[in-house]
Amino acid sequence: MKGKLLFWLLPAIMVVWMAANWKTTKTTMAVMKVHGNAMSTSTQRALACFYEKDVEFQFVNVNMGAGEHKSESFLSLNPFGQVPAFEQGDLKLFESRAITQYIAQEYTDKGTQLLLPGSKETMALLQLWKEVEAHQFNPPSTKLVFELHYKPLFGMATDTAAIEENEAALAKVLDVYEARLAESKYLAGDLHHLPNAHYLMRSSAKKLFDSRPHVSAWVADITARPAWSKVLDLQKH
Amino acid sequence: MKGKLLFWLLPAIMVVWMAANWKTTKTTMAVMKVHGNAMSTSTQRALACFYEKDVEFQFVNVNMGAGEHKSESFLSLNPFGQVPAFEQGDLKLFESRAITQYIAQEYTDKGTQLLLPGSKETMALLQLWKEVEAHQFNPPSTKLVFELHYKPLFGMATDTAAIEENEAALAKVLDVYEARLAESKYLAGDLHHLPNAHYLMRSSAKKLFDSRPHVSAWVADITARPAWSKVLDLQKH
Repeated sequence: MKGKLLFWLLPAIMVVWMAANWKTTKTTMAVMKVHGNAMSTSTQRALACFYEKDVEFQFVNVNMGAGEHKSESFLSLNPFGQVPAFEQGDLKLFESRAITQYIAQEYTDKGTQLLLPGSKETMALLQLWKEVEAHQFNPPSTKLVFELHYKPLFGMATDTAAIEENEAALAKVLDVYEARLAESKYLAGDLHHLPNAHYLMRSSAKKLFDSRPHVSAWVADITARPAWSKVLDLQKH
Repeated sequence: MKGKLLFWLLPAIMVVWMAANWKTTKTTMAVMKVHGNAMSTSTQRALACFYEKDVEFQFVNVNMGAGEHKSESFLSLNPFGQVPAFEQGDLKLFESRAITQYIAQEYTDKGTQLLLPGSKETMALLQLWKEVEAHQFNPPSTKLVFELHYKPLFGMATDTAAIEENEAALAKVLDVYEARLAESKYLAGDLHHLPNAHYLMRSSAKKLFDSRPHVSAWVADITARPAWSKVLDLQKH
């Protein structure tokens, strides 16, 4: 009698569980699409995460030269009209760092472990260093990539005062990184630095990284990752 | 015999559990200190969260006029020399949004529920709108608060071109907010908007909020919260 009850109970529980999780299951099984442009640093930031996590996705090229990122269909994915945008069934996301957070949490068991789960204190410190990338490293480095990479690429004149101001700001950030990297191999949120660090290492701002031994070793380490090569390979297509 | 075993087993498990969680217990029981300045918008952003969560903390005033935020003792709390900094026993945090995230997660059962836990998809959308505040709303609104609030306060001349450029950028962000707030009472990450929204509502940029009915109702709602009044009250001390 007890055996018979269990015989029916288990599949019954499974059916209830599947029904409760039906929407999640549907989303998870839908193809993941990244709408972006291989030349965009924000797109690259998101893609580095997909390759590190070794998850399958479809890259949908957004022709920014033709203004596709301001088209009605793209604005339905991201009302700000910026790449990248993420789509998986009914789930639509944008903002590169929100996309990487979702992928890192959704695929904890695949590829590189990006969350390093630990105590609440450890998690708080990881969150802190992700915020440092977003609010300390990103603003001056983005302005420098614009001045030193994109402007020359499009034949625009560079702004010497803006370069000096942002190099000084970035130098202060890298001083803090140098001290932290002397104690820890990684900062947390390291992959978010990749696109800007890559372009700055091929510009006159390279000196800011080279002159700091721990920062120099760190940037060599993260830019040598196979996932980053895969991101750059997309530019060849 | 069985009763005797249980009699000893339970306290034994408790002792093992306490030993394993000793560091966490110590940190959690230590007094929470917020080092900051009542005039700083980043300090205000963090404090709004402490008051919403109704948790006890000690406010340590950092005299920025006297350069205390660049002193050696403050730099040991935040190497970037910026307020606020958070201290609880051995745990030291900075970056206002990392501090609010820690408090919201650590005190889920106290005060206002700020995490709205739900499906992975819901959590991803919340994360997305928090990123929108940080990367879309914050840059132009911070520049406008500097031009329209702080500069006049310190008798500095305002930069008309910077005001026009950032008002145009903020208007585009508020267009997206207007559409979202027509469908949802809150954006997620709403409290992070408070300091800049407050100062802009007392400046010529008020028109950007007033001309959008849902944005206007939203900003009236969040600035009327008792937690926000408590933050402003700190300026009277």
